[in-house]
Order: sequence, then structure tokens, then C-alpha cells
Amino acid sequence: MKKILLASSLVLSTLGLQAQDSVMIRKIFDEALVNGQCYENLRYLCKNIGQRLSGSANAQKSVEWSKKLMDSYGFDKVYLQECMVPHWERGAKEQGFIIDGTNRIPVPIAALGMSVATPKDGLTANIIEVKSIKELATLGESVIKGKIVFFNGPWDQRFIETGQGYGTAGVQRFAGPAEAAKYGAVGAIVRSITPALDNYPHTGGTVYVDGVKKIPAAAISTLAANKLSSMLRLRKLPLIKFYFKQNCRQLPDAKSYNVIGEITGTEKPNKFITVGGHLDSWDLAEGAHDDGTGVMQSLEVLRVFKATGYRPKNSVRAVFFMNEENGGRGGDKYAELAVKNKEEHIAAIESDEGGFTPRGFSFDGIPASMLKDINKNWKKLLEPYEVDRLTAGGSGADIEPLKDAFKSAVLIGFRPDSQRYFDIHHTPNDVFENVNKRELELGAAAMASLVYLIDQHGFN
Amino acid sequence: MKKILLASSLVLSTLGLQAQDSVMIRKIFDEALVNGQCYENLRYLCKNIGQRLSGSANAQKSVEWSKKLMDSYGFDKVYLQECMVPHWERGAKEQGFIIDGTNRIPVPIAALGMSVATPKDGLTANIIEVKSIKELATLGESVIKGKIVFFNGPWDQRFIETGQGYGTAGVQRFAGPAEAAKYGAVGAIVRSITPALDNYPHTGGTVYVDGVKKIPAAAISTLAANKLSSMLRLRKLPLIKFYFKQNCRQLPDAKSYNVIGEITGTEKPNKFITVGGHLDSWDLAEGAHDDGTGVMQSLEVLRVFKATGYRPKNSVRAVFFMNEENGGRGGDKYAELAVKNKEEHIAAIESDEGGFTPRGFSFDGIPASMLKDINKNWKKLLEPYEVDRLTAGGSGADIEPLKDAFKSAVLIGFRPDSQRYFDIHHTPNDVFENVNKRELELGAAAMASLVYLIDQHGFN
Repeated sequence: MKKILLASSLVLSTLGLQAQDSVMIRKIFDEALVNGQCYENLRYLCKNIGQRLSGSANAQKSVEWSKKLMDSYGFDKVYLQECMVPHWERGAKEQGFIIDGTNRIPVPIAALGMSVATPKDGLTANIIEVKSIKELATLGESVIKGKIVFFNGPWDQRFIETGQGYGTAGVQRFAGPAEAAKYGAVGAIVRSITPALDNYPHTGGTVYVDGVKKIPAAAISTLAANKLSSMLRLRKLPLIKFYFKQNCRQLPDAKSYNVIGEITGTEKPNKFITVGGHLDSWDLAEGAHDDGTGVMQSLEVLRVFKATGYRPKNSVRAVFFMNEENGGRGGDKYAELAVKNKEEHIAAIESDEGGFTPRGFSFDGIPASMLKDINKNWKKLLEPYEVDRLTAGGSGADIEPLKDAFKSAVLIGFRPDSQRYFDIHHTPNDVFENVNKRELELGAAAMASLVYLIDQHGFN
Repeated sequence: MKKILLASSLVLSTLGLQAQDSVMIRKIFDEALVNGQCYENLRYLCKNIGQRLSGSANAQKSVEWSKKLMDSYGFDKVYLQECMVPHWERGAKEQGFIIDGTNRIPVPIAALGMSVATPKDGLTANIIEVKSIKELATLGESVIKGKIVFFNGPWDQRFIETGQGYGTAGVQRFAGPAEAAKYGAVGAIVRSITPALDNYPHTGGTVYVDGVKKIPAAAISTLAANKLSSMLRLRKLPLIKFYFKQNCRQLPDAKSYNVIGEITGTEKPNKFITVGGHLDSWDLAEGAHDDGTGVMQSLEVLRVFKATGYRPKNSVRAVFFMNEENGGRGGDKYAELAVKNKEEHIAAIESDEGGFTPRGFSFDGIPASMLKDINKNWKKLLEPYEVDRLTAGGSGADIEPLKDAFKSAVLIGFRPDSQRYFDIHHTPNDVFENVNKRELELGAAAMASLVYLIDQHGFN
């Protein structure tokens, strides 16, 4: 009889907790949807500051403004965390032409991030199309040497989540130019990594390899890539040449900062739950979805806690990471100092897939049994808000360095709807106008709800 | 032993079916995402035809083009279904002013659909704000008589799905003007039914009541509504007046058509699964999300079946319904003729909530046990495509008349992400550019997958 009583009192207390959680999550969503401030904060970041590539004056401006903004909310701690960041500049706008005999056809290109410049007067060479890095090897140095390699691997539309398409097609941008250089290529033109057919070159980082010549590399719009490809199919080499000129340069590393706000835990002040995004952006637009939305949602998590009177047991930090796009130095520094300061990190959530309607979270490398428990305990609570897709998957580049430092930390990726992200990603279209207020706010509320659940219940 | 064998062979055959279903659904999504045609079909409808309000020349043009388009796909049957539709015209663009002493402040308004015109020189009267229809009754005829009633009920942002916000705030548009007339109001100005703060009046139908005077009614943009409200708060009546002029008229009913394509069932040709949207639109824009996406997705279901070589057992129809927006005559006619022709309707799916990322389907009025079975049998199959939210809920205005006619027909609403729909709904922003190709195609594939499952397995 005693056993039965115990069991039923456990059930009751579980029900009580669930009901209490359910009330708190409803409060969080109401606050974010009715009194939300992330949308107007994002407007300021996009419209009054704009692009903020690491090392730029605008990046510094964004750091200073973010610090002030956090100060205005009266969190328990607000501070900067210094880190040195790469400082790459695009310089004057690029030029690109397909040269077909005497005909010069202008095409929209943009230097890939971290690329070297072309010679001052530009670079002209025969151009050869490949669909993959693998294809380079089959062609070999005899074919590639002295040419510009045109990486035209297609986006695979069959993936349901576009992140998978990006990962697959993206290899040619990350690694293609360095691979082409190994075979003696003099330049690389890379099809923009996007499911969309449009006239925008999508920039993004490329990675050189030590000991291999750095060749200039640019993204070309998908429509121009299709045009170039069809011209190459119709005419045989060496009739089609390509010319491009880009003016980028790598400056010495610059001093910059992560911006951090904290609500200190009432019970376990040295245990941390981090929620973050990255403050830096590429230079072509306003970095609205990438990743102004992520930082402003993270800030909103803390604001919503304060507004609803929720005092977390553990310390909760909103971190605006610096330099995700071309270096990851902010993320590295955050983990390094966490170790140095003997902090204990129990979880981190990153929002860096755009501020679209939230669908759930992915949990990085946790045991299947743990993911099952998370679903069992929390899925029902998140279902009314349609953010209950709790899956295995990646987290985020800025929080990943925590993985090595804190073996038991649970790293989590915020997962919004993915369909529109890569249409605008790293292009001039990544602007405030393409962010929907409610979508952004729902995401912030979803993040706050998960932080709340972790804070209350941990993962055990 | 025999019993055990039987059980395990049942399990095997179930697994076999699931595997076969899973392969077919993958094929459907691949076809829609790689070779999809709904996006380009929608482009034509929006850009080459545009708005197509019932009874208009453009509506007729859209009927003729749709019929030709369906013919080009070589379905088993393509035909028109005649129906008489209301013919309302907006006439010249409306004018609206807040009159504050000698100051005339122009505000964006648009006549509500089916509204009567103002007198030729416009209508000027004192204006009184109410937040709900209920508030009218508390004020009574002594206060309302001779005035313009300003319905300024807010959109409730707390709803997660915006359809609920629309239903709640929308009452003042559907029923408000007729209610105000009962108390002697001379006109009605209604806050646009949208969660967005912008400068667009959102049109949409209003419903007059027999025996009550028809008063002119217009939508006002949410920003202008806020301005008017704050002016009314600051100054006491009768200082603030309102002037508006609208030029709409009701013409005699016009002949129009539903457009229908059919793949005839191989086993049960007289059993029907309908998938549809509505071809007509409001007159202010291109009717892209409302409901060009719905008709083009419905057509795509049939195209995908043909392209993948799938021959349904039951007859599957894509129906482009006419006159959803201001009459529902096409839906009525479809059900009426289905009865007359002794058809048997087993299911109908309507897409009329925009062409956004699909999240699932809602099932109208089915028993809880049936919904449970649907989830048990099909949820897992739809989960990889993130369209597995299978809930109780509404279906669609065009297929609802089937409910009375066919008691066992299952009526289903296609449920895309709802966040952006009411931002552009019934405004000049409902244009092709606001439709995302992949979102649209994923929706078409989701609809085709559900039709396939119903065709294969029914609901038992």
C-alpha cells in the first residue's frame, strides 16, 4: 500500500510540475508575442549599423551598441570578452566577364571571403567546368593547369531541410579553390550555394591550405552559372575565357569582442546555460537572418525572463559571438575563458539558421536514451507552440568549442523552418525586411522555453 | 504455432506496405522538388492574368487558361462546371480622410467586398470607436445613430496559429457593419484583420443582413487605425469626423465555372478524392497565396501522379473552385452536381491557407479514434518530410458543402505554416514574389502523399 501511495504521489508531483511548466511556457510565449522587443532591436542593428564583418569599423560599432543595449536591460552582468579576429576586406566591387571571342558578357560575381585579390588588372584565362572536387582529380594537372576552374556542382533539391543541401553543395566553396590550386589552377569561380535561381552571387568563406598557392576565388550567381555552363557546352575550349578582377585584402588581425549579458543563477551561479548567435556578418547586406536574428533572440530570452519575473537557478547567458563567419575566434575565446574561469557549462543553444518559424531543436551527440527522455518529458509541453521537433543533429559553430572543454555540456541547435534561408544567405537580400516579426518572436520564445526547462529540470 | 505464423505474416505484410508507401512518398517529393511545375504555373496565373474577382473579365480569362493548362497535361477528363456567381466591382479607388477641425488627414482605406458605395460625393460623419460588436450594444442607438462606427478590435498576437487570430478579430469585418446599421450607423470603418502593422488596407467580404439597411463599409490600414484611435483618445467627440468615398457596385450575377481535371480510378472510378483550391481572388493584387498556390498545388498532385506513373484506384480530381471569396457558389455547385451524378466522395483536401512550408493536415469532424488511427498509420511516413502534424480542425470553404452531401466523406485542410499569411492577405502584397518555390512544392508533394495514402488504404 505504501508503495502504491508513493507511486501515485510521484505521479501527482510530476503532473504538478508539468502543469507549472506549461503555465510558465505560456507566459513566455505571451510575453514574447505581445511585448516582444527583438524585432525592433533587430531593426536598429540592421538599419542603423548594417553589415559588420569582423575587424570592420561597423563590427566595432555593433559591439558598442550591443553592450549599451544589454546595459539598458539591467541584467546582473554585462561585459565584453576580448578576442583577436581576422580582418579581411572586399575592397572595390568585383568585375566578372565571360569572354566569347570578342564578346564580353558581364556576370554577377563576389569574392569569396578570405580570398586573395586578382592581379591589379584582373585575371583572364581559359575556364573549365567541373561538377565536383572529385572531378578535378580525374582531369588532372595537364587539363587544369593555367586555367580558371568553374565549380558548378548543383544544389540537390531533394533534401527536405536545406541545411543538408548547403552542406553537400558547399564543399566546392569551402575547399574547391584550394583543391584546384593543387592542380595548377590560376583562379576559381564557384556556383553560388543556394537552391534559388537568381542574379545574386552568394559570398561565404573559402579555406586555403598551407603550402598551396592561394588563388583568387569568387562566387557567381546561379543564373550566370547556368549561362556560362550552357556556353561551355555549346562551344569547345579554348573559345570561352573568363575574366575577373577583385580587390580584396587581408589586413593584420584586429581586436574585437564577444558581448555577454548574464542573469546570475539563484542556486548554482557557477553552472551556465548559454544562448547565443553571432554578431558579425558578411559584408554584402545587413546580416539580418545571418545572424542578427540569432543574437536578438538570445537577448530576448533574458529579457523575457526578467519581464516574467523568472529567476533561473543556474546562470543564463546571452552571448553575441564575434567572428563566426570567417574564423570562429569568438567561440574559441568563450570556451577558453570558461575553462580558465573554472565555470561549469551544462548546456548551450545557438540560433544561426535564420529567424524563421521555429520547428524545434537538434541535440548534438547525446545518447539515444537521453534524446528519448527529452522527448518523453518535454515534447508535449512544446507541442502547442509547434516547436516540438526534438531530434539528433548539429548545434552551432560558436558553441562547438564548448564540446571539448565540457564533456557533459549538452549542445543544442535552434531549428527554424529552413526553406528560405539559403535564398538570401550571404547576399544583399539578407535584410531586415525579409524577417517576419512573429516568426522571430516565436523563435525567441521557443529558445526561452527550452532554457527554462533545462534550468528547472536539467537532463537527468 | 499457426497463430504465431499468421501474426508474424501480418506484421511482415504491414511492414511491406509501409516500405512500399515510403518509397512512393519519396518518389512524390523528388518529382515535385526536382521537376515541379506549380511555381511556373503560378507565375503565369499571377503575372499574365493577375487579379480574378468573381464575375470579372480576368476571372473568365483564368478559367479559360486553366482549362487549357489542364488539357495540356493529358488527364483522363478535363471539364468546366458552370455556376452563377455574384459580380461585385470596386470601381475607382477609395478615398478616406480623418477630419480634425480644418485638417484633412488622408488614410489608406479599401471598400470591403460586397459593400455598397457611399453617396456620390462621399460621406462625412462623426466617428465613434468600438473594440467589438458587443460594445455596440452597450452604447446603443442613442450614441451610434448617424455616426460612422470605427471597429478597432485588436488582433490577438497570443494565438500561435494566425488562423485563430483571423477568426477572432475577423468577426468585426464579417458582421460588424450590418450590426452597426441596426443601431443607425451610416457607415463602418474596420481595422484591417492582420497581425502586421503596415499601411495596407486589407479588403475581404462583409455580410449584410436582410431587412437591415446596407451601409458602406471599408477596411483601414492598421497604422492608420492606430492613428485614428489615438486622435479619438486625445480629442473628445464631436471634434473628429471621418470622410470616405467609395464607388463600388453590385452587378447582376454572372456566369462562371469551376475548372476540373481528373485521373479516373482503375478500380473504383465512381469513388472520388478531391484536391482543390479556389481560382478566384480579391481584386487588389494577384491572388498569389490566396489562392493561386492552392489551385496550382492541386494541379501538381495530378501531374506528379502522371509523372511517377502512379495510377490511383479511386478517381482523383483537381478542382479549381470559383467564387470562394464572396459567395462560395463554386463549392456549392460541385457538391450539388456530385449528388446529382450519384458520385461517391470518400475524401477532399483543400489548400487555402497559403503556399507556405507545409506542416500537416487538419481533419474536419472525424471521431477521435479515427484521428488516432490516421496518426498511428501515417504519421511515421510523413515525418521525414515534416508534414506530420495530423490534427482535428477545419477543412476549407469550397469542400465544406460535401459534408452534408456525403456523410462518410473525410474533409481535410492542408495546413502550411501560418505566420506570414495574414500579413499579405487581401492586400496588394499578395503577389508571386512572396511565394517561395520550395515551400510551394513541398506543399504540393505533401498533398499528393496524403491523396496517395487515402487512395491506397482508405480510412479503415
